[in-house]
Parts: sequence; structure tokens; C-alpha cells
Amino acid sequence: MSDSFAVTKTNRVRQLKDKADYDTDTVHSILDAGIVAHVAFVQDGEPVVVPMIYGREGNTIYLHGARKARVIRLLEQTDRACMNVTLLDGIVYARSVFNSSMNYRSVTVFGAPILVEGSAAKLEAMRHISEHTMPGRWDEVRESHEKEVKMTGVITLEIESASAKISAGLPDDEAEDYDIPIWAGVLPVTTTVGTKIDDDRLLPDVAASEIVLAMQDRTL
Amino acid sequence: MSDSFAVTKTNRVRQLKDKADYDTDTVHSILDAGIVAHVAFVQDGEPVVVPMIYGREGNTIYLHGARKARVIRLLEQTDRACMNVTLLDGIVYARSVFNSSMNYRSVTVFGAPILVEGSAAKLEAMRHISEHTMPGRWDEVRESHEKEVKMTGVITLEIESASAKISAGLPDDEAEDYDIPIWAGVLPVTTTVGTKIDDDRLLPDVAASEIVLAMQDRTL
Repeated sequence: MSDSFAVTKTNRVRQLKDKADYDTDTVHSILDAGIVAHVAFVQDGEPVVVPMIYGREGNTIYLHGARKARVIRLLEQTDRACMNVTLLDGIVYARSVFNSSMNYRSVTVFGAPILVEGSAAKLEAMRHISEHTMPGRWDEVRESHEKEVKMTGVITLEIESASAKISAGLPDDEAEDYDIPIWAGVLPVTTTVGTKIDDDRLLPDVAASEIVLAMQDRTL
Repeated sequence: MSDSFAVTKTNRVRQLKDKADYDTDTVHSILDAGIVAHVAFVQDGEPVVVPMIYGREGNTIYLHGARKARVIRLLEQTDRACMNVTLLDGIVYARSVFNSSMNYRSVTVFGAPILVEGSAAKLEAMRHISEHTMPGRWDEVRESHEKEVKMTGVITLEIESASAKISAGLPDDEAEDYDIPIWAGVLPVTTTVGTKIDDDRLLPDVAASEIVLAMQDRTL
């Protein structure tokens, strides 16, 4: 049996409770499927949300940005961040507006952001982010320059609390609405990686490697 | 010439400034292309971010949820929300990790959420949200029951401040890195609406309408 995140006031799903899932494997699998996270924090008492790429190892999320970027400086200063990753899977056409909805996989994570110090620790975090978004690429490219590591701000977000919410399947209409002579169903929404576009400054005889080719036609 | 949002401390893009765009038309066009927004607000001093669908009319954003949902109650109580819509367009494989990045269209909006009262105003807002996610569907389905309108909480978010950030094109490597014999380029990422899946309780002789068929193969 897989572990679960404890259900607390913070992460308890209140609406559509039957779609809630606190299972660690479910939370991790949605995080692993996504590429863009939305990270929220409080600045001067006001909410800010920023899209970021990320990496994950166990219950640790890695985030990065320019060392001087507002998002990094603020995540460094605050002791609380909330992060959501949502993958849209479909538009659900019910027989009423009320029952129309979306199919999706969504995870919300709460934790305390910590600035990573030290070149080795930063590189390890950067590797996780790189491997999450471009699997296998880390070992293909040149090593990072020390200056580049210095210019990068890296944040870890330990998952203190998390919940997943998954909605899938066909419309759920009112009993009497099934008599309405109207089409209902789902329009699936898919996010896919397409065919590579070569840089216009490629050296002669340079081809895309297996790890690049393997990303093509990947579905998130 | 199109209008722009005033650049203030709140919405000023500080990183990769050349990608920033405050043009009203640009902001609107990205909002119109997206389906899922991430809405952040402060609850008991802590950040929360929630994925929501939305509608737009001019500089007004419409959001909705169950009337009793936490997100609606909290948006009702707070005078500040931040919303981001990001569309991922590509993974940019540069010749270093440092210069690798994403292509995207992103908009961040700041405003004061207000609960919409009154059946007619709520219905009008709900129509905007429905038309944004399922164009043309509003007039096909049965009218909303008064009870359904009562059970729905509707929020308007007037755009007080906004910025767009667009990243597109090929990698931008260090001059000396172009001599590294490695492939570089972009893997495009596309989100598309696919072929309809019929509900398993369709009445005989009921076909999908033009507005449903027109959504198929739409790219966000």
C-alpha cells in the first residue's frame, strides 16, 4: 500500500470530495507528468502567482530562477508557498451549463521554501529541474560554469501537505436531463511534444540524440 | 495604436524585460487563448493558488465555483487576487543548461475580486465563462434553473494591472558555445482539442452540433 499525505485543514479538498486523492504516488505522478507549476507566495500581504518549471525528488520540489529575480528573493524570504500543477484533459459537455465541467489532473502542494546554498547542492537541484523538463539532456550539454551557478537562485520546497484532484469520464447529468435531445460528451484536450525544430546555427553533421528524439510525440 | 496597462511596481516585469508586453490587446489575446487560469489569494496570511476556468469581457475577468466553495468564500472576503494564465509553447534545448528554457505565452493579472449578486448579473457572468470554454454551447443547452444559479458563486476580477510575457524562437547561446558539436533547437509543445467522445447515454438520432465540431482540432 502506498503512503498518503495526512488530511489537514490546509490540504483537505472540500468540493467534489470524491475526486480528492491524498495518495503519495498519485500526487507524485501528476507532478511528474506536468512541466509548468504555478507557485504562489505573499508579497507585502498580497498574493502573487508565478509560472515556473520544477523538478522533484521524493517529497522535495526544486524551483529556480535568476538569483536576483523577484520570485527567488521572495521565496527566500517567505516561510510559505503554495504550488499547483494542473493538466487539462477534456472539456465535458453536459446537458446543462451547471453540470458542464472539465476533466483534469491537479495537485496542490504546500510547503516552506528554502534557498539552496553552495555550488554542489545547487547543481544537484538544477540537475533535477533539467532532468524533469529535458530528460537526459544534463549529461549531453557542457558543464555549467561557476558563474552560471552563482547567477541561478535555487529553492527547495519540501512537501508538507498535498492533495490531488482528478476528474475524468463522461458528463454527470440530472436524471431528467437525459431526455433532452442534445449531444453530450467530452472533447479531449491533449498536450503533446511535437517534432523538433533545428536551431539555425547547428554545426554540420550534428544530429539530435536519442533523448531528444524520445521526447517527440510525448504526451503530458 | 492599442492601449496599454500602466507599468507600476505591481506588474513591472523585472527579468527578461525584452519579453515583457503591457499592450492591452496582447494581454487579452493570451487570456482568450487559455482555458485554465491559476488564481492566487491570501488565506490567514498564507498563499493559496487554485486552478479555475474563466471568462473575459473587456478588462473584466469572470470566475465561478460552488457558492460554498472555499475559493469563492475567500475571494468574496479578500480585496486582492492575482491570476496567471500560461500557455506552454516549447522546450528550448540550448547548448548549455543555463541557456535552456521554455517558449510560452503568459499573462499575470492583479485585481480586486467582487462577488456578483443577483440572478441576472450572475447568469451574464456564467454565460461569459461558458462561452469562453465552450463557445456557442450556452444557447444549445437548457436554461439554468434558479436553484443552480443560487448554488453558483460568481466573482468578477477587474484587471487593475496586468503584464504579458512571451518567449518564442530558437535558443540564445553564448557566442563560444556555438562551436560545441551538439544538437540544439526547440521541441514544440501544443495543446489541442481532439475528437469528440460521445456520452454513453445519447438519445438516438442526436448528433453533435456545428459548435461542438468546430472545437475539434482547435489549438490553444
